[in-house]
Amino acid sequence: MPGSSIGQRLVLTSFGESHGICVGAVLDGCPAGLELDENDIQKMLNLRKPGQSLVSTQRKEEDKVEILSGVFRGYTTGAPIAMIIWNADHDSRAYEQLKTKMRPGHSDYPALIKYKKFNDFRGGGRFSGRLTATHVMGGAIARKLLKTTLGIETNSYTLQVGKIRMSKVTQQMMKMIYSNEVRCPDKNTAKKMRDIILAARKKGDSLGGVIESVTTNLPVGLGEPIFGSLESDLGKALFSIPAVKGIEFGSGFGGAEAFGSQNNDPYMVKNGKIVTKTNNAGGILGGLSNGMPIVLRIAFKPASSILKKQTTIDIKTKKPTSLQVTGRHDPCVVPRAPPVVDSLVSLVLADHALQGGFIKPVL
Amino acid sequence: MPGSSIGQRLVLTSFGESHGICVGAVLDGCPAGLELDENDIQKMLNLRKPGQSLVSTQRKEEDKVEILSGVFRGYTTGAPIAMIIWNADHDSRAYEQLKTKMRPGHSDYPALIKYKKFNDFRGGGRFSGRLTATHVMGGAIARKLLKTTLGIETNSYTLQVGKIRMSKVTQQMMKMIYSNEVRCPDKNTAKKMRDIILAARKKGDSLGGVIESVTTNLPVGLGEPIFGSLESDLGKALFSIPAVKGIEFGSGFGGAEAFGSQNNDPYMVKNGKIVTKTNNAGGILGGLSNGMPIVLRIAFKPASSILKKQTTIDIKTKKPTSLQVTGRHDPCVVPRAPPVVDSLVSLVLADHALQGGFIKPVL
Amino acid sequence: MPGSSIGQRLVLTSFGESHGICVGAVLDGCPAGLELDENDIQKMLNLRKPGQSLVSTQRKEEDKVEILSGVFRGYTTGAPIAMIIWNADHDSRAYEQLKTKMRPGHSDYPALIKYKKFNDFRGGGRFSGRLTATHVMGGAIARKLLKTTLGIETNSYTLQVGKIRMSKVTQQMMKMIYSNEVRCPDKNTAKKMRDIILAARKKGDSLGGVIESVTTNLPVGLGEPIFGSLESDLGKALFSIPAVKGIEFGSGFGGAEAFGSQNNDPYMVKNGKIVTKTNNAGGILGGLSNGMPIVLRIAFKPASSILKKQTTIDIKTKKPTSLQVTGRHDPCVVPRAPPVVDSLVSLVLADHALQGGFIKPVL
Amino acid sequence: MPGSSIGQRLVLTSFGESHGICVGAVLDGCPAGLELDENDIQKMLNLRKPGQSLVSTQRKEEDKVEILSGVFRGYTTGAPIAMIIWNADHDSRAYEQLKTKMRPGHSDYPALIKYKKFNDFRGGGRFSGRLTATHVMGGAIARKLLKTTLGIETNSYTLQVGKIRMSKVTQQMMKMIYSNEVRCPDKNTAKKMRDIILAARKKGDSLGGVIESVTTNLPVGLGEPIFGSLESDLGKALFSIPAVKGIEFGSGFGGAEAFGSQNNDPYMVKNGKIVTKTNNAGGILGGLSNGMPIVLRIAFKPASSILKKQTTIDIKTKKPTSLQVTGRHDPCVVPRAPPVVDSLVSLVLADHALQGGFIKPVL
Repeated sequence: MPGSSIGQRLVLTSFGESHGICVGAVLDGCPAGLELDENDIQKMLNLRKPGQSLVSTQRKEEDKVEILSGVFRGYTTGAPIAMIIWNADHDSRAYEQLKTKMRPGHSDYPALIKYKKFNDFRGGGRFSGRLTATHVMGGAIARKLLKTTLGIETNSYTLQVGKIRMSKVTQQMMKMIYSNEVRCPDKNTAKKMRDIILAARKKGDSLGGVIESVTTNLPVGLGEPIFGSLESDLGKALFSIPAVKGIEFGSGFGGAEAFGSQNNDPYMVKNGKIVTKTNNAGGILGGLSNGMPIVLRIAFKPASSILKKQTTIDIKTKKPTSLQVTGRHDPCVVPRAPPVVDSLVSLVLADHALQGGFIKPVL
Repeated sequence: MPGSSIGQRLVLTSFGESHGICVGAVLDGCPAGLELDENDIQKMLNLRKPGQSLVSTQRKEEDKVEILSGVFRGYTTGAPIAMIIWNADHDSRAYEQLKTKMRPGHSDYPALIKYKKFNDFRGGGRFSGRLTATHVMGGAIARKLLKTTLGIETNSYTLQVGKIRMSKVTQQMMKMIYSNEVRCPDKNTAKKMRDIILAARKKGDSLGGVIESVTTNLPVGLGEPIFGSLESDLGKALFSIPAVKGIEFGSGFGGAEAFGSQNNDPYMVKNGKIVTKTNNAGGILGGLSNGMPIVLRIAFKPASSILKKQTTIDIKTKKPTSLQVTGRHDPCVVPRAPPVVDSLVSLVLADHALQGGFIKPVL
Repeated sequence: MPGSSIGQRLVLTSFGESHGICVGAVLDGCPAGLELDENDIQKMLNLRKPGQSLVSTQRKEEDKVEILSGVFRGYTTGAPIAMIIWNADHDSRAYEQLKTKMRPGHSDYPALIKYKKFNDFRGGGRFSGRLTATHVMGGAIARKLLKTTLGIETNSYTLQVGKIRMSKVTQQMMKMIYSNEVRCPDKNTAKKMRDIILAARKKGDSLGGVIESVTTNLPVGLGEPIFGSLESDLGKALFSIPAVKGIEFGSGFGGAEAFGSQNNDPYMVKNGKIVTKTNNAGGILGGLSNGMPIVLRIAFKPASSILKKQTTIDIKTKKPTSLQVTGRHDPCVVPRAPPVVDSLVSLVLADHALQGGFIKPVL
Repeated sequence: MPGSSIGQRLVLTSFGESHGICVGAVLDGCPAGLELDENDIQKMLNLRKPGQSLVSTQRKEEDKVEILSGVFRGYTTGAPIAMIIWNADHDSRAYEQLKTKMRPGHSDYPALIKYKKFNDFRGGGRFSGRLTATHVMGGAIARKLLKTTLGIETNSYTLQVGKIRMSKVTQQMMKMIYSNEVRCPDKNTAKKMRDIILAARKKGDSLGGVIESVTTNLPVGLGEPIFGSLESDLGKALFSIPAVKGIEFGSGFGGAEAFGSQNNDPYMVKNGKIVTKTNNAGGILGGLSNGMPIVLRIAFKPASSILKKQTTIDIKTKKPTSLQVTGRHDPCVVPRAPPVVDSLVSLVLADHALQGGFIKPVL
C-alpha cells in the first residue's frame, strides 16, 4: 500500500488536502454490529477542531463529519465506512509567495522536489496537520469499538509545553483533561502552559511539547512478535502526525540510564490478578501487552509556521531571501493533539485486537 | 502480513527461534544485478555476533550465513534471497525452570498467555535478541544496494551507556566505531562505558543505553506523506528490536522544549547545493528526506536478564517466588546493536528508494 | 487489507452501497503529473451507466462523478484521488420482502448468515453490480495513465450472449464496439444478441455471456513470477465482478485439448521485432507479458434477478416458499461489462507497470 | 509484497530455484496449537514428486522436506514455519544452449528481457513447475488445519487429459484418485488418459488437461465482498501454477450459455439444513461460500517442453533457428497437479477462515 493507508485488519485510508474541497477517510474492516452514528465521531472531532481558543489557530472550521457508507439503520455493516468533512474556511492567498520561498521546518522544499511542483502546496496540502482530522474520523470508531467490546480506553493529555512539565498524573485527574484549553489534567500547570503559549504567540513564535497517553484495561497478549510489536505499530501510527519527532514507552529514554535491577518490573498478584509492581515497560513486553496500562510519550517540535521573519532561499533564484509567514497558525499544536493521539492508539490496538481474535469480525 | 515481515517493495521475512535449529530470513524485492556473495553479509554479521568480548554474552555462535536462493553467478537475480544461520551453541537446560517462573522484563508472561503455552520458550524463542541476526542478513544487502546505487551510507554507534554519554560526533570519528568493544567512536568515552558494563556484570546487573545513527548522501524526497513517512517506517522497523523503548529524530525530545524560531532549520546554499544551517529536523521534513543527514537516537532499556535474585510469581501456583536467572546473557546489549540499527535503517531507506523510483527493479 | 482494496503500488479502495447515499473510490499511488479532469472518468462511466437501452436495467442514474482530492490545477498530485457518485434513483421498497426470502443466485443468504443481519441488503448492498462503477472510476485513470505513458490500450467487447457467439475479431472492428447496445463489434451478431436478450426479458428470464478483452502495445516483462503473475492479478481483479464465473487466457480451456506442438507459439522476427506466429499464450508466458496482445475471456452467468416465479425458502420459518422478484434489473449484464473489464485490466497493468519501473512515480 | 508471497492472515512465501540449492517456503500466521510433523507434509509432497511413473518426468527427487522453525514439541507455535527441500538430481547441462535460444511457450524470453539476463535460467529457474513444491509445503499445513478445525476437505483430480474427459464424479469415487498414475478417480478413463499421454510422449509431444477440485464441509460466509471474494483469491492462487490458463467455478463457461431460470440454484431444506437443489454456483455466491461444495475446474495448457524440433529465434543474432529441447520433462503435468491444487485451495480457504474468525489464532 502507498502511504495513505495504515492497518492490517482495520485499515484507515486518508484522503484530501488542507485547502482542497474536503478531507476524508475510509475505514475498512470495522466489525459489523457496532452501534454508530455521526455524533460518535463528531464529539471527538470537536475536541481537535481549530478556532476554539487563543492557544490554537484562528482558522474557523465546523469540521462537521458525514458518514457516507458502511452504516445501516444505526449499526455498522462490516462494509467500509467512508467519512467526509467539507473544507470551509480556507484562505489560500497567503500561499502564493510560498511557491518559491521555502518555509523552514515545513515539507515545502522536499515535496516540491519530489513531486516536481505537481503537489498542492496550499496550506501544506497533503502534509498539513489538518489531515489529522482523518485520523480522528477513523479513531473515534476504533475507540468506541475497543470500549464497547473490551472496555479498553485511551486517554492522552498535554504533559509538557516548552519547559513547563506537569508532575505525576493520577487516574482521578483523567476527567480534567478537557477542562482547559491546553488539555493538561493539572489545573495549575495548565495555566502556566497557557501563559507561555500566549507569550510565544505575541512574539510571533511557537512552542512544542509532549503528550502522554495512557491506555487501560488491556488483555494480555495483544501484539505480534518482531515487526508486529505494539511498539512498532504504535510508533508507525504516531510518527504519522506532523511535528512528532520522538516517541518513548514506559521509562523510555530515562530507562536507558537505569540498571536492569531497577528497570525490571517485578510480578506480583493483586486481587487475584497478575500485575507488576512498577510499570517501566509501559505495559509492553516482547512487543505484547502484559495487562498493565500502555504508557507512552510523544515529543512535538514547535510549530514550524511562525510569524517572525526568517531567512531562507528562493528556489527559483537559488538566492537567500527572507520570509514572513502570514496566514493563521497554531502557536502550539500540542493542545489539539490529544484526540489525535487517542485516535491513532485506538486504531492500532483495535487492529491488533482483531488480528489476535480478541474482537470478532461480526459482533 | 502477520508480524514476521516488513517492507513494501523490499520485504524482509524473518524466521527461526533462539534455541531452534536455525535463524533465517527471506529478502524479496531486491533488484536484479547487484553483485553479492556471502561475505557481504558475513562481514556485517560478524560485527553483531556474540561471544566476542567481555561486554557481551559468552554464548559462542559462528553465525555463519548461507545464501540459499536468489543469487546466481555472483549477482542477485530479482528472486527472493533466502539466508540461513544454523544455531550451534544453545544450551536450553537453564530454561526449564522458566516454564512457570516468569522473568521480569521478558516476554515470558504475555507470550505464555497469548500462545496458551504452545510457544517455544527456550532462550526467549521468537522474542530473543538472537532474531536480530535476521535483520542483519537482509540489512547487509540493503546497505550494499544503497551504497552501490545512490552512495547512501548509514553509520550507527553507541552514544550512551547508563549515564555515560559521549559529546559531539564528527564525521571523522565514524571510522573509529568498531575500534573498541562498545562501538563508541570516542576512545575515552568508550573506555568509561566498558568499565561500567564490566562493573554491572560483576554485580549480576545490566545496563541500557542509547544508539545514535547517522545516514548521509540522501536524495531529496525519499518517503511518502502521512503513514509512509520516513519517521513512521523507521519507527516501525527500529521498535522491532527487543529492548528498544524510545526513538527520536533530530532534536527530538529536546526540540520539544525549544521555540520555533530556534528549532526551525534555515535554508542556505552551500557549494551550489541547498542545505540547512542546523539539522534539528534530523534530515526529515513532512516525512520526506530533505537531503541533510538522517539523525536518530534509540533508547535501549537495560537487558532484562540479570543474574541478581529477583522476586516474581509462579504462574502455576499464582504465588510469589524468587528467581535467579542463569545461562549466558549480555550485561548490556547496546554494543551489539549498531549493525542491527544500520541494517534496519538501510532496509527502510532501500524500500523507499525503490518505492520512489530512486532505484530501479533491475540495475 | 480487507476485501475493499486491490493493488500494490496503485491501490483502489471501493466504498458505498447500491441503495446507500453514494458509491465512491479512492485511488492511491497514481503518479503525479497526469493531466486529469472529471470528464476523463465520466466518459467511461457513461459507457456502463444504467438506463441507456432496453437490454439493460431501467434504473436511471446520472452517475455523475466528482473528484474530491488528488488533482490540482488540472494534474494529479501524487496524493490519493477520491471520487464519488451520489446515488439518485434507488427504490428500496421491493427489497423488504427479501429480508427473509432468499433470492436464488444472489448473495442474500450467505451475506445474511455472515453478517448476522447487519448488512445493508437493499439492492444487494455491497454485493451489487452497481459497485463496479467504483472500478470504472479508478480504471478510467489507470487507462489514461497507460495510454499516455506507454501507449497501452485495452478494448473489451461482448463475444457471446447465451449461445450466440461472434467469430473472429479484427483490429479494425475495435472501433465498432460502442456502435450498438450490446457492445459487440460485429453488427450482425450484435443484432442477434439484442434479439435474444429482449426475448429473455419478455419471458422474465435472463441471459449470460462472454466478454473478450484485448490489450495491445505491451512492453515485454510486465508481471512478477508466481503469485504476482499477470494471470494471478488479472484473475483476482476480474473475479471481483459479480456474475463472473470463469476466466481464460489465450487458448484457455480449448488449449487444454491440444498438443504442445500445436499450442506452443513459435518465435519469429517481424519488422525487426520479436513476435510469436500464433498467440495461444494470450500474451503471457511465465506470468510475464511477452509483448503480444493480452487476450482473455470472461464468463458471466445469467443475471440472478429474474422476474419469473422461483421456489426458495423463508429463512425465518425455514419453510419452502415462492418468490417473485420485482424491481428493475438487467436481463443481461454483459453489455454493461466492457468498460468494467477495461477498467480492471488497466488497473492491474498500471500497477505492474509501476512495480516494474515501466512508469515512474512522478511523470 | 512482491510476487513471492500470498495471503493476508496466512501468508506463504516461496523461495528457491529449479536448479539451485533448494526450494523452500515460509508459512506465517498458522495458528499455534496444531499438531504437526514433517510426515504431514511429506505425505502430500510424495503425491506430486517427480519420477514416479512414465506419465511424468524422469527427474528423480526425493523431495524430502525439513521443518526449520515454528514447530516445538510436536505442535505449531504461532511462529513462521520455514520448510526446505534440498535439490538433488538437477542436470543443468541441457540449459546452456537455452541462454540464447528461446523455448516457445516458456518464460525464457520475457524473463531474459525483464531481468537483463541476471535471472537463473537453468531449468526455468524461478518459473519452473518445481516451485509448486513450495505450494504443497504450505498447503499441506493449511489442509490439516482446515480438516482439524472445521472438517473442510479439498479433493482435486484429473478430469480431462487432451480430449479424454471423464463423466460425472461421485463422492464415492474420491477415494480412488490416487489409485492410478494419472489421478483420475474413474479407472477406465484413467487408462485411456495414460495411453494418450504415453503416445504423446513417444512422439516427443505433450498434452494438457483439466483438473477439477471439490471442497466439502464449508461453513456459510467464508470470503469477503468484492476484491476478497473467494473466486478472486482462489483465482489469484491457482493462476500462480505454471501452465494454468483458465479457471471456472460451478457451471462456469457453460453457465454463460444458460438462462437465469436454469442456472439459478433454488434453495431447499434437507435434513434441517439449507441447501440448494443444484450447484451451478459452485458453492460461491457474492464471493462468499454458501455451504455447498466449492467446485472449480482449471485448464492446463500442454507442457511447453517438447522433444520435437521447433522453430524459434536466437536472441543474440535475432535470426530464426531451430531448437530441440533435451533434458527430462513431463509429457503432461496434469497428473502431478492435484496435490498442488489441493494445497492452494486449502491455503486460500484457511486464510479466509482466519480472516472471518472461523479459526482462532491459537487453537
